[in-house]
Amino acid sequence: MEALKGATKATGTNSPPPHFAANLDVEYVIVFRYANAGVSAQTGDSTPPEEQLEKLLHTLDLAGLRTVVRDGGNGTLLIFTRIRSEKKLLGEIYRSRVRDWLHGIRPAAPEKETQKSLEREPLTDGERLRLVYSLITLPNSEGGAGITPKQGEWTLVESVFALHDREFNKKWLKDWSTKWMIGPEDLKVIRDRFGEKIAFYFAFIQWYFIALSVPAALGLFAYLFLPAYSSLFAIGNCLWSVVFVEYWKRQEIDLAVQWGVRHCSTVQRKRAEFQFEAEATDPVTGEKIRYFPAYKRLTRQLIQVPFALFAASCLAIIIAGVFSIEIFLVEVYQGPLKVILKFLPTVLLSISIPIVSTILTGFATKLTEFENYENQDSYEAALTQKIFVLNFITGYFPLFLTAFVYVPFGEVLVPYLDILNVTVQHFGHDEKYTTSDTGFQINPSRLKAQMIYFVVTAQVVGFVLETILPQLKRTVFKKAKEFDSRRKGINTEAVLDPPEEKKFLDQVRYEAELEVYDVTVDLREMCMQFGYLTLFSPIWPITAVSFLINNLIEIRGDAAKICMEMQRPIPNRADSIGPWLYNLSFLTWLGSISSAALVYIFSSADLEGGPPKGLTFHGLLLSVMLSEHVYFGARFVVSYAMSKIQSVGLETERKEKYMVRKRYLEESFGMENELIRQEDEKTGGSYTGVGVVPSGQDGRPLADGDLSGKFWRSQNGWKDSVNAGVQIMDYVKKQEKKTQ
Amino acid sequence: MEALKGATKATGTNSPPPHFAANLDVEYVIVFRYANAGVSAQTGDSTPPEEQLEKLLHTLDLAGLRTVVRDGGNGTLLIFTRIRSEKKLLGEIYRSRVRDWLHGIRPAAPEKETQKSLEREPLTDGERLRLVYSLITLPNSEGGAGITPKQGEWTLVESVFALHDREFNKKWLKDWSTKWMIGPEDLKVIRDRFGEKIAFYFAFIQWYFIALSVPAALGLFAYLFLPAYSSLFAIGNCLWSVVFVEYWKRQEIDLAVQWGVRHCSTVQRKRAEFQFEAEATDPVTGEKIRYFPAYKRLTRQLIQVPFALFAASCLAIIIAGVFSIEIFLVEVYQGPLKVILKFLPTVLLSISIPIVSTILTGFATKLTEFENYENQDSYEAALTQKIFVLNFITGYFPLFLTAFVYVPFGEVLVPYLDILNVTVQHFGHDEKYTTSDTGFQINPSRLKAQMIYFVVTAQVVGFVLETILPQLKRTVFKKAKEFDSRRKGINTEAVLDPPEEKKFLDQVRYEAELEVYDVTVDLREMCMQFGYLTLFSPIWPITAVSFLINNLIEIRGDAAKICMEMQRPIPNRADSIGPWLYNLSFLTWLGSISSAALVYIFSSADLEGGPPKGLTFHGLLLSVMLSEHVYFGARFVVSYAMSKIQSVGLETERKEKYMVRKRYLEESFGMENELIRQEDEKTGGSYTGVGVVPSGQDGRPLADGDLSGKFWRSQNGWKDSVNAGVQIMDYVKKQEKKTQ
Repeated sequence: MEALKGATKATGTNSPPPHFAANLDVEYVIVFRYANAGVSAQTGDSTPPEEQLEKLLHTLDLAGLRTVVRDGGNGTLLIFTRIRSEKKLLGEIYRSRVRDWLHGIRPAAPEKETQKSLEREPLTDGERLRLVYSLITLPNSEGGAGITPKQGEWTLVESVFALHDREFNKKWLKDWSTKWMIGPEDLKVIRDRFGEKIAFYFAFIQWYFIALSVPAALGLFAYLFLPAYSSLFAIGNCLWSVVFVEYWKRQEIDLAVQWGVRHCSTVQRKRAEFQFEAEATDPVTGEKIRYFPAYKRLTRQLIQVPFALFAASCLAIIIAGVFSIEIFLVEVYQGPLKVILKFLPTVLLSISIPIVSTILTGFATKLTEFENYENQDSYEAALTQKIFVLNFITGYFPLFLTAFVYVPFGEVLVPYLDILNVTVQHFGHDEKYTTSDTGFQINPSRLKAQMIYFVVTAQVVGFVLETILPQLKRTVFKKAKEFDSRRKGINTEAVLDPPEEKKFLDQVRYEAELEVYDVTVDLREMCMQFGYLTLFSPIWPITAVSFLINNLIEIRGDAAKICMEMQRPIPNRADSIGPWLYNLSFLTWLGSISSAALVYIFSSADLEGGPPKGLTFHGLLLSVMLSEHVYFGARFVVSYAMSKIQSVGLETERKEKYMVRKRYLEESFGMENELIRQEDEKTGGSYTGVGVVPSGQDGRPLADGDLSGKFWRSQNGWKDSVNAGVQIMDYVKKQEKKTQ
Repeated sequence: MEALKGATKATGTNSPPPHFAANLDVEYVIVFRYANAGVSAQTGDSTPPEEQLEKLLHTLDLAGLRTVVRDGGNGTLLIFTRIRSEKKLLGEIYRSRVRDWLHGIRPAAPEKETQKSLEREPLTDGERLRLVYSLITLPNSEGGAGITPKQGEWTLVESVFALHDREFNKKWLKDWSTKWMIGPEDLKVIRDRFGEKIAFYFAFIQWYFIALSVPAALGLFAYLFLPAYSSLFAIGNCLWSVVFVEYWKRQEIDLAVQWGVRHCSTVQRKRAEFQFEAEATDPVTGEKIRYFPAYKRLTRQLIQVPFALFAASCLAIIIAGVFSIEIFLVEVYQGPLKVILKFLPTVLLSISIPIVSTILTGFATKLTEFENYENQDSYEAALTQKIFVLNFITGYFPLFLTAFVYVPFGEVLVPYLDILNVTVQHFGHDEKYTTSDTGFQINPSRLKAQMIYFVVTAQVVGFVLETILPQLKRTVFKKAKEFDSRRKGINTEAVLDPPEEKKFLDQVRYEAELEVYDVTVDLREMCMQFGYLTLFSPIWPITAVSFLINNLIEIRGDAAKICMEMQRPIPNRADSIGPWLYNLSFLTWLGSISSAALVYIFSSADLEGGPPKGLTFHGLLLSVMLSEHVYFGARFVVSYAMSKIQSVGLETERKEKYMVRKRYLEESFGMENELIRQEDEKTGGSYTGVGVVPSGQDGRPLADGDLSGKFWRSQNGWKDSVNAGVQIMDYVKKQEKKTQ
């Protein structure tokens, strides 16, 4: 019921929905850079901009789009586009829905009259924008204009973006800032506006937010009443993470069915960058196939292994190096300038990690491009995995280092840091500045302090940066651009604005400068946060409480970010949070190992000083193994139980499929059945033939070929068969009486 | 091409295929027991057999079957059935194929004219028998006669079986006995005759047979050149098992696509025994739903856990007890009668295990029935899992006991067996008969001897029993029945046989006595065999060689068994070997642990005497953990690589789906497209409006509502937009020149 309300809000297509009216019914804006003034403008292309502009506008026209050109200022033109006619839009809607049906995304074919179909399933803003976007970007062979910004022949096309619906944005933010819970109705609103991919992110973060209350309560209880590194808490936390992930899988299916996008990932968006090795005509389908051999891609993918090892070692070495310096400076070194030198590691880390990360991410992107994926989804999945590895190291390695190297082996290893000490002595320093080797004691509170840093400080800093940085960056970039343009003598002011459009065009030029929203960045953030919870929360049980508070703000902050600091996202479809799901599973698994190790090592430790005592290596191994296998068992049981409990989504899907089947069977069987029944009635039971007396008894030998006919004619209809049976029974009884 | 050859062999339906002619065109025989003479006859039913016979024949008639009744001897009637008319059969074929299409089993709907459809996809014997069988057994609501032997109202129906095609069987056995390899063509022949479920078994055993050559070669090499318990061999063997299982998964898909049964497991066969708790009418589909709550079943399934523990302990205690007695008698005991007493354990085990197994299997069946599954497949899967647990204990526990208890801890544990010794002393025996506690040494060759027993002796004995026992049982049973009947004065001889049918009816009566073939028994045997290979083959590397020889015979033995000692199997469909696939995966996983432990413990051992030395517990744990995680990694890599390499089956499926889509799009888009194009041509680019001069320049203030219209009309067609763009560029350039 609630869902219907949302749907009826969307209007038919006879007139564009009111939301578009505020934007003069513009659907997309294409930024065309004719002057090489911009920071990212392409050079080296010799065709004059006029020629490319003509080609672009002609291509758009052929694809069925109306265009209006206005000045974008700063050496750019703004090309406003809009679907040319309502008929064209209706055709696109129908075509897209039929394609969905054929790919198994929707159970039933859409109604043949599009108008009827639209009444039953109104067009949402999201669907409209998605369709128009595919008209602009799909290759010609699939009916689009094939505009790929900055690629191929479109070197001067800078970007394609949709315009914000400011009225809606205002309402949305106001609505969310006044309520605690985001319900299915709210998710549907997001889905209708920004597409399923973004709606899935919000669904995920909302479910994560609700689910966090369990480990938060557990953690609070553990914090107040249980000893530090309680195994009880670790087990509870680990089981929660399993249930959380498995239940989310179910929710994904339910949402996908509800939103009508289940299996939509099977329809692949082709990548414009895909380089085929050969173009062949498929002998069966007659389709042109762009072919790139799978074994080649597999070989290229193998480069990932040395890359991952290299990247991991790079980062690990930096982190371990800085860590050693820090330990040395903070806990060993007693020399001059200690107060200032203490901050050196933080500075070193803050500078080196982002630089190295950026370089490695660049490598990862190059590598993923080299792997040459045919589809957008597999490309994104491959890139996501690589980025996850990098984030994993930078995010979790420091804690692993402290927990599993520094604390258990610190007393053995730290004195080796004295090579520096020796160097210092060498340069003539006094020995009193350093502690003696034997006097060193590890600082067990360091682990908790580090954890709190990652869980609280880093999250807050991240949130602030995420919210403020883009704005700052934009301002600086804009100034730089203007300065650059002015220096080169390019006009930065927009010209020829019709006065009544001035306000609108200024808004468009502002939005053109905004960044493109990438939902995977936000998903990654949540996934990394979940990792701290599963891997390390025994260190500081109220981790989940801190996340709970953080995410309450995060959800709203992300909404504000989309509305105010980013261009309106292109509404893409998705039927899942994609590769992050695997990473969540991976983190729960690793959590089972890490928690067990933490609990085993630290629960016996006297936290006030010295490393844990009475530990054995086989004890550690045994606890880790036990925990891991309990995890496997629990995951199996949970996912089995989930699969057996009725799912709303699957149930709906089943029902829809059933209805389609039933309708089809009724339509096409009616006649056929009737015919068969008539024939049956005419012939059944009306054969002529001999009665029950065995057919051979007249003494005439039967030809072998005749035998079957004789056999079947020997009993004419089922009543004859009954008589024959009764006769046999009677005969046997008589015989028996005789013998008795 | 090969596949087509097989298909064209099957004939259309105008006349029954020649194979049926030898059986007088009989499709199924129903055994109706009217006298309570049989061993398994039902008692306590008060309706006279005549009444039930009448009802039975009438029901069959209503379902569209012709019947002929003959005497079955021994208090039974034989009811021969045959589909009543060709029209009926055609209708059933069409209906079944449409149902398959709607369930996604076949990509395209069948041709509307069934005759055409049959020319393209001829009816095989298997399909014909399957359809007729479903006519006999499906519930009335699904268009069948609802005959469920010995159940519900059909207490006197003993069985429903098909007749062997003796001509084909002879050819088949002859063919297989003269060739080494069973190819895809042979599998297709089996599939066409006996259905996909049995064909999958033969496909599996054939693939297993071929794949065995790898570990056989490895094993032979290890046996000849490598030290005992070589880790190299263990790793190779383990990796092979991973590739074997993953590749089989692929083959299953390929075969399922080729045989047109992919996803057929989604169409569930309802169990007649299913007890519903409530019958409700589905509000959406209007279908009657027989409802049994999932949580109740989950609760009932939980009983499995104590049952499995109980069963496992029962068997384990018996095995361990007998094992202790054996160790004591063979290696410790030196008293009188040792020669005879030595055989006591074997006798004890041979008697107790089958008895306890049978009791536990009975329990397992009862439990599975109690779990009340709605569908045949889930019932079979649940039962299979329980049987697997029982088989696992009886099959592998003795070896686990020897390898991981007796050998490492024997010297500590065996002396405790002396409590018996003490008892013996107590009864006045001399001390010289027993060895002293300290003198005991474990016998390391025991493990290998035991392994050879399970791998060679037990397999051979099993094969012989499997081949001979049914025949023996049949003869004994028959004699007993006849004796029993004679004692009760029931006529055992069949009467009223038409003389020319005598030979045929004798053959039918013979086949009625045969056992029903259950393919899961044979699958279980192979799965257990695979388990010895993955779990224990480091003990005796040439295990695989022995299995290779065994299976060469086994395949042919199974074929002979089906032809000669079993009733003709009802051709069921399947798209996989079902739950055994999970068990195979499970065994490869356990193999990674077991092999690592075996290699770690025994590779250092001096096999000539004494337990292994220099072992540490953490060493064992570490090697097991390492091996297990390498296994997980390898499995992931192998399955990923497999998923990326083109699969014939998936490719075919994709192509077929594409063709269907293309056809549909062509059919239903033609018109729609044409309309849109016409409309586009008419309106596109022909708007009237102002040119490039901004629309507000005439000074008239525009109403806000008009703005959008003005905006879009400001450029009339794409050429106007180009001009506007060029004008802006020129204007900007001029401005720039001015400022410079």
